[in-house]
Parts: sequence; structure tokens; C-alpha cells
Amino acid sequence: MTAPTAAPTGCLIIIGNEILSGRTQDVNLNHLAKVLGGMGVRLREARVVADDEAAIIEAVNQTRARYTYVFTTGGIGPTHDDITAACVAKAFGVPLLRDPEAVRRLEAHYAGTGRELNEARLRMANVPQGGILIDNPVSAAPGFQIGNVFVMAGVPAIMQAMLASLTNRLVGGPVVLARTVRCLVGEGELAGGLSAIQDRHADVDIGSYPTYREGRFATSLVLRSPDAARLAAATEEVAALVRGMGAEAEVVEGAA
Amino acid sequence: MTAPTAAPTGCLIIIGNEILSGRTQDVNLNHLAKVLGGMGVRLREARVVADDEAAIIEAVNQTRARYTYVFTTGGIGPTHDDITAACVAKAFGVPLLRDPEAVRRLEAHYAGTGRELNEARLRMANVPQGGILIDNPVSAAPGFQIGNVFVMAGVPAIMQAMLASLTNRLVGGPVVLARTVRCLVGEGELAGGLSAIQDRHADVDIGSYPTYREGRFATSLVLRSPDAARLAAATEEVAALVRGMGAEAEVVEGAA
Repeated sequence: MTAPTAAPTGCLIIIGNEILSGRTQDVNLNHLAKVLGGMGVRLREARVVADDEAAIIEAVNQTRARYTYVFTTGGIGPTHDDITAACVAKAFGVPLLRDPEAVRRLEAHYAGTGRELNEARLRMANVPQGGILIDNPVSAAPGFQIGNVFVMAGVPAIMQAMLASLTNRLVGGPVVLARTVRCLVGEGELAGGLSAIQDRHADVDIGSYPTYREGRFATSLVLRSPDAARLAAATEEVAALVRGMGAEAEVVEGAA
Repeated sequence: MTAPTAAPTGCLIIIGNEILSGRTQDVNLNHLAKVLGGMGVRLREARVVADDEAAIIEAVNQTRARYTYVFTTGGIGPTHDDITAACVAKAFGVPLLRDPEAVRRLEAHYAGTGRELNEARLRMANVPQGGILIDNPVSAAPGFQIGNVFVMAGVPAIMQAMLASLTNRLVGGPVVLARTVRCLVGEGELAGGLSAIQDRHADVDIGSYPTYREGRFATSLVLRSPDAARLAAATEEVAALVRGMGAEAEVVEGAA
């Protein structure tokens, strides 16, 4: 195995008025972030856009030029507000075609259910020319990949199944390891020393997240690096900083 | 009161590696969407960006030119990874200055707590030239407004308090009313009739959201319009569509 020279990056485009109106709390970003992180693809940006053709096309074209992989969620159902496939086709400048394999899957799914595979449902078989289907083991209607863009459903259970079925198409990079130093010290006390440690370990990303624990100010200091030795070295310095202030430093694996 | 000619729009920029790594589930978008919706400001876009200067500056400058109001969350604490204020100053091309009133608030907050107002904490009083403070009744360190950009904390309790303290600066528009028709019919059955209703009521936004209820395919059809009469008329047509298919149509207020 050869490691890629630069870590692959990802971007998520969340498509849906229901997220922007506050009707629906998005959970797909968090799931995607964890899955990508586990395979060494770094999610660098996410955008939430309305069910609006111009907005979707712009977001797709801006981000696919910038990131290794772009994922979209939402807008691939059978109703008039499901415009993602058509917009992605326009973004790529290709026609939207009815995919025979997608039709076959829908036929197989609806056969014997008593539900009709009508024209509205057949719209879910429309795929931009050159698109490769993404399996939907939940409700058959597939997503698709075109170029570096992966189009998935918005319903979390379906999105998660689609993502699981497509990860073998992604080339990961070095997995970023994380370690957390938790302490009952306010982050303002730690800031000076922490900044000096960050300066000495430019290749380790150090994040500081305040919380309240046991009625006191507490801080989670999350360190990230693909290099285990450098991560350990920086973590030890952070733990020493905390202990030097007379506090306990609890070191845990992962971003806690 | 004169109603604005066009509905004011909003955009949220969520700043933080912890959202993009999956460590933290964002909840500020959903809260902001509801608060803005209640005052007739339409959230049109959201972006999640890393703790990265270039990414923050680009997001601020692209969106402040496009939307009536831009809100940011995250990155205004005392540690090295809190770079939002400096980035917003650069986006506006103004210096970052230590704000005397912000310093006074921090002094008052830290006095008698046994915690020191050190240089790291004083960084939380840095505000771009021309910025107007946003109150922080939770932990004193203020946010700020500059132009049409409102900079808030990322911790949800603090973000919510800051938002509550700044809404009087926003000029709302007509509030978008919502009504939902719920039924035990798959959205694929409804799609054709629904599309025709949407065509007849171009000024009413109709969204279709599939769910599972009582082991059956169910759909929530959410209608939105600032015009109560038009909303009622479109809702009645959607309910009639459902009933015409021999199903119950449950009509509820709001986006259910």
C-alpha cells in the first residue's frame, strides 16, 4: 500500500428546506464525519442549501472543484421538491437519463407490495449520464455517484446504508488519531501554555473545548495527528501543563 | 409599520473543527432557524467551516454580500484555536482592537471569582473596529456585530442567550406560516397530485417528508406561506387529495 501524498478531503452538501426552517435536526453530518474520519478522509466543509436549483448547482460546482469527495444528502425522492438529481446533472452539464438498472430495482421492490411503480416513483430512477448507482438496501431507490460527487438520501437510516455501501469506492489516507486530556481547569488558565505547546507541535491539531463538570469549569483538550508518536509527545506536554497547575489530567483515547 | 419589500434572509456560519470531525453534534443551526423563522427572517444557507483563517474569511465575505444577516457561532474563546474575531476583522479589512467596555465586563465578571483575568482571557475583549458588542449573560465575554455579521459563541447555552439579546437589532419580515397534512399514504402515491397543487399555488412552498408510522408508509406534507388565506386554500387542496385516495388527512398547525 502506498499512502497518498496529500490527505483526501470531503465536503457535505445538505439539501433541504426542512433543515433551514428548523423542522428537522440534521444528523447526517455527524455520521458522515465519523465514517470519513475512520478511513482517513477529512471532512473540511459542509453546506446546507435550500431546495433551490441555483443554490444546489452552485454548491456542487464550487465544492467538487475543491475537495476530493463531495457528498450530498436529501432531495432524491419521488415528489416535486426532490430536485437533486436534475440539479447535479445540470451542474455536470450532462442529460438526466432513466437508468435501466435503477428501474429494474424499483420494479423488483414494488412487485407484490400492492404499491404501484408509478411515474412519480420512476423519477427516482433518473440519473445524470455517466452516473454509477449507489445501493439502497432499505427502500431500493438508489443514489448515484458522478465524478467525485456522491448523491444520497436524506432520511438518516437510508443515508447510513448508502454510505456503508459506497465507502469501498473511496481512497482513504492516514487516519487521524485523537487523544483527549480532560481536566477541571478553565480553558482561560490553560490558554497561554497551550498556545506554546501548539507552536512547538505545529503538526498536531489541538482544540480546546470548555464544559461544566461537577459544578466547576472543565476543559477537554483534544489533540489530533496521524502520527502516533507525535500525538503522544504533544499529549504528554498538555497533561504536564495541567498537572503543573496542580490539577488532575485525565488522558483518554479519542476525541472525548 | 411598513413591511419590507423583500423578506430578509439569514445565513449561519458554524466555525469549528469539532463539528467537522464528528466530535460535536451541532444544535445551533436548528435553534437559529426557529428563532429567525418566528420573526420573519428566512435562513437560506448554512456553512460549517474549519478553524482555518482563509476558510472563515471566504465564508464571511461571500455570505455577507448575499444575505441580509449573517450569523457565526464558535471560535470566540480564550485559546489559540479561537480565531473568529481576528478573521472577521480581516474579512472587513479593519483592525482588531481591545474594546474597553468588553474589558470592563470581563473585569466585573472575574472579580472575586478567584480566577484571573489574564492575557488569554483579555483576548475575548478583542473586537473588530466598528464592532458593537453582543451581551453574554452567561459568561460575560461578549460577541459582537459588525455590519450585518453577528458573531456568537458556539456553546449552545451561550449562543442562545446571545441570540436572544440581539434579536431586537434585526428587522423581520412577514412571518412564514406553516401547516402540515399528515397521512398514512406513501409520498409516491401523492406525488402526481401534489405536483399539480404546487403548480397552482406557486406562492405556497410544499414539502413532502416520508416517515414510518404504525408500521406503514406515512407522509408529512408541510405547506408554508406568509399569506394565511393562500396557505389555507392550498392546505385544503392537499387534504382533499389525500381524502380522495381513501385515506385520513390530519391537518395540524406548524411544520409537524
